[in-house]
Amino acid sequence: MATTDSRSAPVLFETDPARYKHWKLAFDGPVATLSMDVQEDAGLRPDYRLKLNSYDLGVDIELADAIQRLRFEHPEVHAVVVTSLKERIFCAGANIFMLRGSSHAWKVNFCKFTNETRLAMEDASANSGLKFIAALNGICAGGGYELALACDEILLVDDSNSAVSLPETPLLGVLPGTGGLTRVVDKRRVRRDLADVFGTLAEGIKGKRAVEWRLVDATHPASKFKQAVAERAAALAAASDRPASGPGVTLGPLGVKETAAGLEYSSVSVSLDRAKRVATVVVRAPDAPVPDKIPAILEAGDQFWPFRVFRELDDAILRLRLNEPEIGTVVLKSEGDPARVLQADEVLFEQQKHWFVREVIHFIKRTLKRVDLSARSFFAIIEPGNAFAGTLFELVLAADRSYMLNDPERPNTIQLSGMNAGPFPMSNDLTRLQARFYGDPQAPAVALAHEGPFDAAAALDAGLVTFAPDDIDWDDEVRIALEARAALSPDALTGMEANLRFVGPETLETKIFGRLTAWQNWIFQRPNAVGPKGALTAYGSSERAEFDFGRT
Amino acid sequence: MATTDSRSAPVLFETDPARYKHWKLAFDGPVATLSMDVQEDAGLRPDYRLKLNSYDLGVDIELADAIQRLRFEHPEVHAVVVTSLKERIFCAGANIFMLRGSSHAWKVNFCKFTNETRLAMEDASANSGLKFIAALNGICAGGGYELALACDEILLVDDSNSAVSLPETPLLGVLPGTGGLTRVVDKRRVRRDLADVFGTLAEGIKGKRAVEWRLVDATHPASKFKQAVAERAAALAAASDRPASGPGVTLGPLGVKETAAGLEYSSVSVSLDRAKRVATVVVRAPDAPVPDKIPAILEAGDQFWPFRVFRELDDAILRLRLNEPEIGTVVLKSEGDPARVLQADEVLFEQQKHWFVREVIHFIKRTLKRVDLSARSFFAIIEPGNAFAGTLFELVLAADRSYMLNDPERPNTIQLSGMNAGPFPMSNDLTRLQARFYGDPQAPAVALAHEGPFDAAAALDAGLVTFAPDDIDWDDEVRIALEARAALSPDALTGMEANLRFVGPETLETKIFGRLTAWQNWIFQRPNAVGPKGALTAYGSSERAEFDFGRT
Repeated sequence: MATTDSRSAPVLFETDPARYKHWKLAFDGPVATLSMDVQEDAGLRPDYRLKLNSYDLGVDIELADAIQRLRFEHPEVHAVVVTSLKERIFCAGANIFMLRGSSHAWKVNFCKFTNETRLAMEDASANSGLKFIAALNGICAGGGYELALACDEILLVDDSNSAVSLPETPLLGVLPGTGGLTRVVDKRRVRRDLADVFGTLAEGIKGKRAVEWRLVDATHPASKFKQAVAERAAALAAASDRPASGPGVTLGPLGVKETAAGLEYSSVSVSLDRAKRVATVVVRAPDAPVPDKIPAILEAGDQFWPFRVFRELDDAILRLRLNEPEIGTVVLKSEGDPARVLQADEVLFEQQKHWFVREVIHFIKRTLKRVDLSARSFFAIIEPGNAFAGTLFELVLAADRSYMLNDPERPNTIQLSGMNAGPFPMSNDLTRLQARFYGDPQAPAVALAHEGPFDAAAALDAGLVTFAPDDIDWDDEVRIALEARAALSPDALTGMEANLRFVGPETLETKIFGRLTAWQNWIFQRPNAVGPKGALTAYGSSERAEFDFGRT
Repeated sequence: MATTDSRSAPVLFETDPARYKHWKLAFDGPVATLSMDVQEDAGLRPDYRLKLNSYDLGVDIELADAIQRLRFEHPEVHAVVVTSLKERIFCAGANIFMLRGSSHAWKVNFCKFTNETRLAMEDASANSGLKFIAALNGICAGGGYELALACDEILLVDDSNSAVSLPETPLLGVLPGTGGLTRVVDKRRVRRDLADVFGTLAEGIKGKRAVEWRLVDATHPASKFKQAVAERAAALAAASDRPASGPGVTLGPLGVKETAAGLEYSSVSVSLDRAKRVATVVVRAPDAPVPDKIPAILEAGDQFWPFRVFRELDDAILRLRLNEPEIGTVVLKSEGDPARVLQADEVLFEQQKHWFVREVIHFIKRTLKRVDLSARSFFAIIEPGNAFAGTLFELVLAADRSYMLNDPERPNTIQLSGMNAGPFPMSNDLTRLQARFYGDPQAPAVALAHEGPFDAAAALDAGLVTFAPDDIDWDDEVRIALEARAALSPDALTGMEANLRFVGPETLETKIFGRLTAWQNWIFQRPNAVGPKGALTAYGSSERAEFDFGRT
């Protein structure tokens, strides 16, 4: 069987509407329409066809890009209608033949990315006044319904054909992999016994019952559907706090250079040591003050340093996830003048109410969440010349551990800012300082009240770094830590990190990435799904699935 | 390789101190000492030896029994010292050779039971005034440390040898399987970066650093250890609200009869249809009023119906889990006079402050949680003659679905009581009514305010049952539902149910069973752990583990 393996061709995450193969964007004042129109023969790999608006990672990369551009390039858009250009089909979900031909790691990474994209839609709704209406003009199955669940409202055409369904369990022996089960009971609050029936019914639910069970918000006959959608879109758009008009900020290409050693962006460098399975990511402070007035910030646009550096970091992390599966540890470093980072933080803080700065802050938040959710170990290495202050210090807090050189001969400091106090919550809704000091609720305020930089001894004392070796021990301690990490089972590390990183409260988001994803990953390995007679293997062939009925 | 398979010999869960092989109970006024002294050659299976106080399910069944008896038979005990009789060894954790030789399903069920036992200790501390002190007199590794984590306080002897550790990740390529990671960061609130270091350090942490990192509460030199433990035990005992003296309630044998068709208890019957993979569990109401005054309740003791019926149900569920892996669906039925159940509920409600009744209520709560946490589908079938009222109606609420016959010719009702309003929270701390009506927060109060019984139409209308077919459809609808369920992938059902059953808030308990357990189950299947070159396979042999270093 062909395997869709990440090593066969690197996945690139940059795209733009002119290059979209699967989506069409249309604009009508404050309402945009994002229409799925998947090109069957344009999958990322040639071993499957994307029939019936089914999707693969390539389709979702375009969707993620479209959501991003709506936020940044189209501030005048206040509501987005998500629909399809195919007759009587909204979306058939993730392509099953793609899943069947994919490695376990690919399936897991595919679901993680699609989950992040759905959560970015909910983030736009919750924090940016950009609302989404799913206009289900036909069959809406599996991942198609999960896309609808990520919208604020779901309208379903009422005909004899159109139903919503999660057929994964009855047809494929797996779970809906993109938050479906969690959103059905936790977001839409469908009663759990009805959700149980729904989740086992391959043909799904349509019409009045779909409304009664809360699976959709309303149904309308085909003749009135467009008008009903337009009315709801207008109503949601009217409640938005987005600006009435643009201009927006155009997202230009990142212009990354791929080198033998890794990736070179304007403010981020990635160097790979494949033998040691370590990637070193260096993030650079701006080399001049960032503009502090809105016109100049808008003029800087995608070159505004806080935005640029996190766009680059986001791209780097996504590439590492998909294209460098054997890199187990990411070393996070920074360079430059921390005063420049703190100046940028002040601008973010002062201008946070402006729509563009607000978008930048939420973008940084989402990028930092990608770090939290990456199945790699992160070690922050803090050396003289580092720029780990304020927003960049969030990377140290996101790391599984941090090492800070304590050499009185070579000054080495870190510093906090107001940006560590709230704007970048983790998926569990705690700030990284709150999560770090979960056992000492006073500690975040004490650390934030500290005037000026912390040297290594003070940072260690405040609990802001894990270790602060002196110059005699430094090289050995860091080297041994990296070697020891590289020797451990990558699976056990993934599980351990997924449990230690998210202390305290759980949210819909952490439930999706913790409980639901962990179970889905379990099922994605089980012979009943992926074995020679498993349901995912048998789907679409003449064979019937055969199960080992032992319950586990 | 020998496989420890549940089908080779049925596991029995009843035991008593006279039969303990691995634990010694000693009493000294309000303080009991529960000492681990595992008999190497007395494992449940012959293919491993329980060296160094390592344990298997048999050891944990005795531990669970001891905790239960301390609660019921020894109300005068207010604090329990958990320690070991082995020199310089507290406990080496779950036996690795047992794990290595066990089927995936066995590993999962073993961890589930040990988790429930640890949580029962925390339940006793939180709700019954019975406190636990882990007196670590030596090496405390893996599951040994997880047992300590379930205690209220952890004291560690300070010598050159004794450390606490979670060596699963570095040595075995798996996770600590009994709540260790969650309790380290969420209960003891160890800083996440320190937890990361601790979780990758095979030799563990000892002495002052173990205290500084919050891994233990105190260390004492060997010469002062016993006295320090005694002082802490006395202090914790003094704060208890348990009675100063007994008598307690003796837990007699259940006297279950195993028949060809299943299990016959005094108030519970289990009949197995292995061909259809369905077990039918019938719970019977009492046939006379239960005593309502404390002396008579104490005289009834383990025959007090609310206690007896749930002890029997608990035993039945545990046996189904371990000994009948291919039974996919459990049909829950009841028989008898619902008025008798409601009378018993009134007694529970009126007398809930008495220590024994309090224990009974918490026991019922824990048994209902075992249903929530069982990897089986539960369908409640409600027919004329049923006794689904009050406490027994919790079984309907715990079920994934319910079917209630709606035949005006044959009266068929259900009823709620005050016992549905709070005493039996789920692991997420919601009542089953709150969880059911998560989308309609007023509904529980409305349903509870309803006077008298609900007939099928009223129950359906109130959302208390899933379906209410009439007599023409009844047989077909129930039969088809059971057949359809039996045809689905058991793994997908396990994952789906684990996600739909626990809406809303998460707690330490649901994090352990959801996030942590799901990841552990994933890892327990991965070649890096259990493949021919996996770490669990290689442990203790001359081979070194070889990993596929792809990160997933």
